[in-house]
Amino acid sequence: MIMNDSLFHYCLFLADSTLILGHRNSEWCGHGPVLEQDIALTNIALDLIGQSRNFYQYAASIQGNGATEDTLAYLRDERAYSNCLLVELPNGHWGQTVLRQFFFSTYQYYLFQQLINSTDQQLAAIAEKSLKEVTYHVRWSSEWVIRLGDGTEESNQKMEESLENLWSYTGELFVPAVYETPGFGADLAIVQTQWLQKVVAVLEEATLSLPQQGWMQKGGKEGIHTEHLGYILAEMQSLQRTYPGATW
Amino acid sequence: MIMNDSLFHYCLFLADSTLILGHRNSEWCGHGPVLEQDIALTNIALDLIGQSRNFYQYAASIQGNGATEDTLAYLRDERAYSNCLLVELPNGHWGQTVLRQFFFSTYQYYLFQQLINSTDQQLAAIAEKSLKEVTYHVRWSSEWVIRLGDGTEESNQKMEESLENLWSYTGELFVPAVYETPGFGADLAIVQTQWLQKVVAVLEEATLSLPQQGWMQKGGKEGIHTEHLGYILAEMQSLQRTYPGATW
Repeated sequence: MIMNDSLFHYCLFLADSTLILGHRNSEWCGHGPVLEQDIALTNIALDLIGQSRNFYQYAASIQGNGATEDTLAYLRDERAYSNCLLVELPNGHWGQTVLRQFFFSTYQYYLFQQLINSTDQQLAAIAEKSLKEVTYHVRWSSEWVIRLGDGTEESNQKMEESLENLWSYTGELFVPAVYETPGFGADLAIVQTQWLQKVVAVLEEATLSLPQQGWMQKGGKEGIHTEHLGYILAEMQSLQRTYPGATW
Repeated sequence: MIMNDSLFHYCLFLADSTLILGHRNSEWCGHGPVLEQDIALTNIALDLIGQSRNFYQYAASIQGNGATEDTLAYLRDERAYSNCLLVELPNGHWGQTVLRQFFFSTYQYYLFQQLINSTDQQLAAIAEKSLKEVTYHVRWSSEWVIRLGDGTEESNQKMEESLENLWSYTGELFVPAVYETPGFGADLAIVQTQWLQKVVAVLEEATLSLPQQGWMQKGGKEGIHTEHLGYILAEMQSLQRTYPGATW
């Protein structure tokens, strides 16, 4: 069952990362700078949560024993969550939120382009379904990064600061966790090369400087999180924890 | 059992209000402007949580049926919480936090001065024990209100804003809830008069203007809360909800 264990955990990593970023983006609902963009980001949040549902459902079917998408999302604690650290960071201002989205969506884009050819057919199917959404997320977020980076002096300065804040959390995406076996997963070295190429191009158009490659944070994919995840889970899981087994 | 029902609910109101304010103040732990004041506010938080424990323990003994201070604090939901709205508001900046503390501690001071003569001996005993702490809380918070109000132009301006933010939440303290029967409780009209006298004197020394008496918020004492309480409870109860019955 080693193969299935890795596949199960890999699905959880993909599910957790999209759920937590969906949750973070949903915090903007009703608070966006203009209504149309508020709705755009909220739709992206819904897309991400939808992707997480697909991955959780598949993980639950692998685990069996009565596991469901709900038990996996709502009844695991912080150390059992495998999302990358990037997605659990606080939103910061709008510019930082869209920059994080750009980093993550671009990663998803090149990752899923490989996963559509995964040896695991279910994984391939979810990746293919998600890719249409992710393609739009990359376009939307990169346009915002360019607009703000190549905007006013103030917006440029704020984007430079956000780059500094987020950059060290991007490295983890490309360091394979023990469950990211090439068998069904992706070659992360290739994903990294493609990701960097796209990021460099967009940052250049945004007149933003690529941060110096430096020390990178890690741990999230192995369940070692920042102080922020516990608060997210406390809030996100409170209804299910307070009324166990509650249904509509 | 009508008498006991009111007493039970009254204890919950006192317990909830001190617990939630203690929780809010504890958010400052490690974030205060200077170490000594950080520790002072954290000690006040501990005092308040200690007071809430006494009230919860008494409420649990009235309720029976296996109720404990822990089940009352950790296993009731938002609508069952009876704290006044003032204590659940976000901290804001340091000045707003100390102003809120001043409002609440002054209220407690005059309330407990009556409760030490309550017909209910346990209530009287808790009030007497708490009064020593509250006396210090009033002194500490009023000194801060004066220092910041009568400080720089900026600090004065910030305190004026905080006054505007908090004032409409002070009225609820003096509107008797159905469970605040005069039998064991206090005459709130007297508390209000004494409270206002003290507040006027301190604001005057702080060169702050008393807000126009206007429309006042209410609901908390009857379980109708602001959007903030749910988040507080989600965080505060997460450990007990995640690991039901957990003990040290």
